[in-house]
Amino acid sequence: MTEPAPVASGSGEPPKEPSKNALKKAQKEKEKAEKKAAAKARELVERQKKEAADAEDVSKELYGELPLTGSKDFKVTGTQRENLSNINDFEDKEITFRSWVENARVQSAKLAFLNLRQGLNTVQAVIAASEKLSKQMVKFSGSISTESTVVITGLVKRVNEPIKSATIKDFEIHILKVFIEAKAEVPLPLQVEDAERPLPDAGTGEEEAKQEEGDARPLVGLSTRLNNRTIDLRAKINHSIFVIKGGVCALFQEFLSKKGFTLTHTPKILGAASEGGANVFEVKYFDRQAYLAQSPQFYKQMLIAARFQKVMEIGPVFRAENSNTARHLTEFTGLDLEMEFQENYHEVMGLLEELMLFIFTELNNRYRKETDLVRSVYHVEDFKLPEPGKVPRIPFQEGIQMLRESGDPITEGIKDTDDLSTPQEKLLGRLVLEKYNSDFYTLDQFPLAVRPAYTMPSPSNPEFSNSYDMFMRGQEICSGAQRIHDAELLSKRMREHDPPIDPNGAGTKEYVDCFRYGCPPHGGGGFGLERIVQFWLGLPNIRMCSLFPRDPQRVAP
Amino acid sequence: MTEPAPVASGSGEPPKEPSKNALKKAQKEKEKAEKKAAAKARELVERQKKEAADAEDVSKELYGELPLTGSKDFKVTGTQRENLSNINDFEDKEITFRSWVENARVQSAKLAFLNLRQGLNTVQAVIAASEKLSKQMVKFSGSISTESTVVITGLVKRVNEPIKSATIKDFEIHILKVFIEAKAEVPLPLQVEDAERPLPDAGTGEEEAKQEEGDARPLVGLSTRLNNRTIDLRAKINHSIFVIKGGVCALFQEFLSKKGFTLTHTPKILGAASEGGANVFEVKYFDRQAYLAQSPQFYKQMLIAARFQKVMEIGPVFRAENSNTARHLTEFTGLDLEMEFQENYHEVMGLLEELMLFIFTELNNRYRKETDLVRSVYHVEDFKLPEPGKVPRIPFQEGIQMLRESGDPITEGIKDTDDLSTPQEKLLGRLVLEKYNSDFYTLDQFPLAVRPAYTMPSPSNPEFSNSYDMFMRGQEICSGAQRIHDAELLSKRMREHDPPIDPNGAGTKEYVDCFRYGCPPHGGGGFGLERIVQFWLGLPNIRMCSLFPRDPQRVAP
Repeated sequence: MTEPAPVASGSGEPPKEPSKNALKKAQKEKEKAEKKAAAKARELVERQKKEAADAEDVSKELYGELPLTGSKDFKVTGTQRENLSNINDFEDKEITFRSWVENARVQSAKLAFLNLRQGLNTVQAVIAASEKLSKQMVKFSGSISTESTVVITGLVKRVNEPIKSATIKDFEIHILKVFIEAKAEVPLPLQVEDAERPLPDAGTGEEEAKQEEGDARPLVGLSTRLNNRTIDLRAKINHSIFVIKGGVCALFQEFLSKKGFTLTHTPKILGAASEGGANVFEVKYFDRQAYLAQSPQFYKQMLIAARFQKVMEIGPVFRAENSNTARHLTEFTGLDLEMEFQENYHEVMGLLEELMLFIFTELNNRYRKETDLVRSVYHVEDFKLPEPGKVPRIPFQEGIQMLRESGDPITEGIKDTDDLSTPQEKLLGRLVLEKYNSDFYTLDQFPLAVRPAYTMPSPSNPEFSNSYDMFMRGQEICSGAQRIHDAELLSKRMREHDPPIDPNGAGTKEYVDCFRYGCPPHGGGGFGLERIVQFWLGLPNIRMCSLFPRDPQRVAP
Repeated sequence: MTEPAPVASGSGEPPKEPSKNALKKAQKEKEKAEKKAAAKARELVERQKKEAADAEDVSKELYGELPLTGSKDFKVTGTQRENLSNINDFEDKEITFRSWVENARVQSAKLAFLNLRQGLNTVQAVIAASEKLSKQMVKFSGSISTESTVVITGLVKRVNEPIKSATIKDFEIHILKVFIEAKAEVPLPLQVEDAERPLPDAGTGEEEAKQEEGDARPLVGLSTRLNNRTIDLRAKINHSIFVIKGGVCALFQEFLSKKGFTLTHTPKILGAASEGGANVFEVKYFDRQAYLAQSPQFYKQMLIAARFQKVMEIGPVFRAENSNTARHLTEFTGLDLEMEFQENYHEVMGLLEELMLFIFTELNNRYRKETDLVRSVYHVEDFKLPEPGKVPRIPFQEGIQMLRESGDPITEGIKDTDDLSTPQEKLLGRLVLEKYNSDFYTLDQFPLAVRPAYTMPSPSNPEFSNSYDMFMRGQEICSGAQRIHDAELLSKRMREHDPPIDPNGAGTKEYVDCFRYGCPPHGGGGFGLERIVQFWLGLPNIRMCSLFPRDPQRVAP
């Protein structure tokens, strides 16, 4: 320990002798100054070395970091940037393209490799030091951080051995120029390669990272992925899922447009919780209360009453259901349609079946690459399609009979007019697949008591109704029916409903009234878009089919 | 006046002499009984007459009211029901079709006329009593209530004089069978023919019915129409508006799909009011607070960061703005897109201009009939299109200069970096139309201070920005820009913004962070679908372009 410094005398004069501490301080400062000088000298040497190296660096102009695009220092080159899908056209030619770095590694002082990605394509690039390409450039190229966006110019060269690690197997890029356009920070909160691998289980996203058998890396759980969704979504499997999802929408519209359907947009903010009031989100609407639409049901029927004849809608649907399952979301995309029919609601059902067969067939034709990519991660059987016009159409009572005959304990005590539980639905799906070799089927004539009040009762049996559900791999994707188009019968059915609905209630009255002015007979259905994608691909969790999923626990990101 | 009845004696015995009143009562009862008997006799005679008439009615099976379609008593006929668009194929042949009654009238005991509508087609039908068609049937046909849905079978006959009152001018229907499928109540709360006529003014819907010059019927105001929207929407003009609206969506998707855009669906329920917090609707989300998305801005950019390269979205947009104007809605349909670009944000602007020109051109090609129908009611000039590749692209500062040079008093004192007011925008639209003969143009390089914090500042002048608006007939339909794709610059701009935004705030942090992982330069824009339709057709109120419009005063129907 050092002695405490002597207390200064009251005279204000400086002490004549410097204290031990003061000496130490001076010594330290001297050392500091020397260190500083040494550092400066080193810096100078380094700078001189670097300048010398730069002077030697024949490739100075061929690599580096670009200034922020669109900012003051940025210069437009006008160079055409190519799509790697057209790489065949560039054999032995120079190509310039934007891509992002999946992986970069320095092999030696003279050799570096990069795996580059653009869309669903990946390609290998290589840089070897040469007269024109400096070692500095090789080092720079091999050290670019993963997920940085780069602009590369290179020669397209055919390779002798197919490249296993890339989707482009016959060519590699011999780098001539490499510029970082947007550098990724290190470390990333999630690795994209982890996002490419399957989920540890089919849970609700609360599971922890798990080790997959025979695999060195742990599988990353859904929660972690969803918390870092913008990186997670970069995975090729996720791109494929959402290209397919957009495709389902486009096919839905393509088919129905040709059939004369008008694309409509009905309100999502409602003045009254008209469809029963349960499971509805409340909105503060200026100085009053409003609600989020649980479906476009009332509105699409009102459009039929308004003579639109055939309408479709693609839009968000909001359900305040506290369901934390692998197939429920609080916000999902509804694919809805409603149409007048001439004499029999099976006209509508037939159109819905035809629509789905068209979508499935065209998914196979147009989105095979994406489907295969997803199935290479989730090893699910191909979706078994029925022959055109031969969608299995099973009366509900026959479905109950099939379940009973299966002898499975979960069917014990099932009554003719009971609704099916999820496990019973899945079992029936397996039975139908066995019997009809189809993963898609319709269950027709549901019990009246388990359907909404606006469902038309069956003419043949008042305990049943002109209503149907459609299933993929044994799980419901669509619910539909003939709707009552007569105000008196509708009012009666609303009053009889459990719980009763007031046909003169707010939001309900204007719906009921629209059937007083000559509304034609009509029916329709509503599909859950995310479910179609989930069951088409056989994915374990519906959250994987929503870009930014919403459930009772999650409203972010 | 009659005497008051005497008070009964206390004895409980009946009074011996009937009172005057009792006599009167007896007399009345006798008269009543006689009347009843007479009525019964008349009824019997009537019934016998009717039965006799029915026995004579050779047409009994050819007309009447059908039982409720799909119900117990309904029988499927299997008769093909035709589309009136194909009427040419049926000259001198029998046709069966569903339609609704615009008007039915009995001309004489032997002759009745009906105006029938199906979609945008109307046709005249006639029934004349004959050996096979009874007078009863003629009377029934001519008395069907307006707006009832009917199924008609008739002969298609060419007429000598074109029929003025119908869209099908060369043919009429000679009725053979007529059945009411769904009867409309009388009176209707709104006449469809009133809905076919223009609005009394361009107000916010609060105006009263007004007389149009030289017209016998008063014009019905917007409020009344919207209150009875399902009848109002039956008007051909309204069908046309919404067919065009659906068409704009389809064209938007068609163009962008071909350019490689992925159709996406981003969440409408947000955990935080990330875009500033003003004008946002609050939602009760289970036990927490959530908000409705004011735009998909953050999410579409996050998808670019997630490497989607080009994304589009069509979805509802919610604005809690207390604006009661003819061009504001609290819920509208956003047409959004976002894309990476290579070197210059004008790549994005050029694509947006090309997109709009495609939509306008194809509206003219594919929706001419509907456009003409609307313009026959609202006599607006055809929309002037620029030549391909020649959309006027006016730098903001040049726009200010044009306004100043106009000498119009509303431009007095306007500064270089002021935002434009609505009247100034409209004036500039007229000046551009004069100078460039185009109703569509782009205003480029807006002042930085009037744009959102994520807008890329201009490289040439830090007071301006790489941002643009697009205008139709002088009114804004689109706002877009290059966005900042660097997290540090974005954070800085957010802090500098007025009011400042916390880059680490809830909902904002995950947006800012997505630019740390190598996001490419990108830009985009958002269109208001209802505005495109409104200004294309030159309609006075945006509410006319929403099926069930929402504004601060209206959340129903």
